[in-house]
Amino acid sequence: MNTKLEGHKVVILLWYDPPPNFIPHLQAKHPGLQILWHNCNTTKVLPEGTWKDTTALLTWDIIPDPEEVPKLQLVQLTSSGANHCFGKGIYEKEDVVFCTSNGTHPPQITEWVFATFLSFQHQIPKYMEAMREEEWIPTQVPAPEDSVGLRIGVLGYGAIGRQCANVAKAFGMDIIVFTMRPRLTPESRIDDSYVVPGTGDPNGLLPSKWYHGTTSESLNHFLAQDIDLLLISLPLTPSTTGLIAKEQFQILKKKRTFVSNIGRGPIIKTDDFIEALEEGWIRGAAVDVTDPEPLPKGHRLWKAKNLFISPHVSWRSTKHAARLLGVLETNLERLSKGEAYVNRVDKVRGF
Amino acid sequence: MNTKLEGHKVVILLWYDPPPNFIPHLQAKHPGLQILWHNCNTTKVLPEGTWKDTTALLTWDIIPDPEEVPKLQLVQLTSSGANHCFGKGIYEKEDVVFCTSNGTHPPQITEWVFATFLSFQHQIPKYMEAMREEEWIPTQVPAPEDSVGLRIGVLGYGAIGRQCANVAKAFGMDIIVFTMRPRLTPESRIDDSYVVPGTGDPNGLLPSKWYHGTTSESLNHFLAQDIDLLLISLPLTPSTTGLIAKEQFQILKKKRTFVSNIGRGPIIKTDDFIEALEEGWIRGAAVDVTDPEPLPKGHRLWKAKNLFISPHVSWRSTKHAARLLGVLETNLERLSKGEAYVNRVDKVRGF
Repeated sequence: MNTKLEGHKVVILLWYDPPPNFIPHLQAKHPGLQILWHNCNTTKVLPEGTWKDTTALLTWDIIPDPEEVPKLQLVQLTSSGANHCFGKGIYEKEDVVFCTSNGTHPPQITEWVFATFLSFQHQIPKYMEAMREEEWIPTQVPAPEDSVGLRIGVLGYGAIGRQCANVAKAFGMDIIVFTMRPRLTPESRIDDSYVVPGTGDPNGLLPSKWYHGTTSESLNHFLAQDIDLLLISLPLTPSTTGLIAKEQFQILKKKRTFVSNIGRGPIIKTDDFIEALEEGWIRGAAVDVTDPEPLPKGHRLWKAKNLFISPHVSWRSTKHAARLLGVLETNLERLSKGEAYVNRVDKVRGF
Repeated sequence: MNTKLEGHKVVILLWYDPPPNFIPHLQAKHPGLQILWHNCNTTKVLPEGTWKDTTALLTWDIIPDPEEVPKLQLVQLTSSGANHCFGKGIYEKEDVVFCTSNGTHPPQITEWVFATFLSFQHQIPKYMEAMREEEWIPTQVPAPEDSVGLRIGVLGYGAIGRQCANVAKAFGMDIIVFTMRPRLTPESRIDDSYVVPGTGDPNGLLPSKWYHGTTSESLNHFLAQDIDLLLISLPLTPSTTGLIAKEQFQILKKKRTFVSNIGRGPIIKTDDFIEALEEGWIRGAAVDVTDPEPLPKGHRLWKAKNLFISPHVSWRSTKHAARLLGVLETNLERLSKGEAYVNRVDKVRGF
């Protein structure tokens, strides 16, 4: 029995109660570990003395100040991105490791991407309207273009992009990807983040072509490759903020690319996005993230043409908790053994 | 150059004009072949003398009487099913071969199946409503259940069922299938109908388990296998008519199976279907085919709970014409060489 976590304390801040067997299971694995599970949804205030002895923390946006958590070693985020932690004191501390929950979201987010893209392509909303009128009109809409031979361009080939590629392949699509760093060797194409078994493309075998670069020329060159569906699955960092703007939308004009953003809202410049939709430069778009977010009532983006918006929910799944706790469990295990963490954030890179 | 079709005449009845290069291309391949392309959409009446010398015919529902087409050898249908030809004189003639366009529809129908299923699972219509009100409410709907580990049950493992299985696999689903005939050997699991390269499961390698039978006991046993998504991709024959009725829906209650029907409407008993939806025995359904069809205004089915209906359009695709003409071209080639046709209908079996 592993007792290396003797004297450690993990604080788990989630918006639901623990699954029935989770705490006994974790406790049995690490008898000396103190475990505090706090349901933030039912009780806003943390118990007195939560922080003092905490060595590991699972959290979304409750980030303590460094002086509150003198013993903290590991922050396990519930999100795939770490951008909401930039600038926080604890993020800047060298001896506190941040890990994301990268890999726990790709199945459900990929479903969201294809539900919204294929509904647009097959004009499902039109048929829903016809249903309300009880009208059977087979040729009301033009024949859709199915995905065989269409090209998906994946901007940021992380865990989410890889599961989207896996599904795109099954639909008969060609896959091209863009990454900031060059991925010229088979080894460099491997993604070692957590992966739901049987999904994704952990070895990077699916793309027919890899593009890379950090300049707008390199990005624009990628965008000019006749992309039918552009998937934005990048983290938000200073270098991805405003990456997709008027100039990029004008490149997408040629194929009237459908744009799907499940990264972060500010990667797209909102005003330019509205212009691209209204002018028909792009055939349509689906976004689960916006800038500003939450999108306030009355904002012009709500009514932009051919756009589907959902309120940052594509990561949600009944299976998310189990996957997230699986990542936490793995990282506690690695903490106890002094091994390298899964999904560790490179603080300089920002993800 | 192949001149074996000297003296032959092919009549092509479609609701659009030929693609630019198709007729010159076919003519160059078969110099002696007479080709008549008739756009049924712009001209209802066929030219005088259309039928007399016709040896091959591409058609949907214009089926001449046997005495009109004394030389007819091959009927290439535009549909995957042949049920609309049952009882017609020409169908009964032993020396007239019928072929379906099996395999030209799976990519687009599979997209329809997953667009409708995933939109239901992720409650996309709810978010569309929220958009109209410009409301950003992330937790308005319960977290969806993503497809990893869910089970798709495919009723009828033909070309369409196989492409759905291929995509289901990419989403992380388990696949089980039911066929009328036993498929106990690897050879028996092969489907030799036309397949769009890179799609489907022509060798029958994806299912984790195969079920078969012709009795309602065998069907009910299959339906009891904890199926989350039931795909009805069967042809309509006397033995599949009314196959899914109250008894079957009651079996599906346990998992509140989502039902997707892209086969034919009368495979499901409509009254029992409405009861299953209204009582919540099944969580929801999407159907592209109904009974009666077209579904008249005022029919109760239009307003059944958790149901999506489209007007028999899932087969449509901008790429369908090219695939269909590819099948015709293959079969004319085989006619000229006396080889076995692709997608030949077994008239006893009915598909």
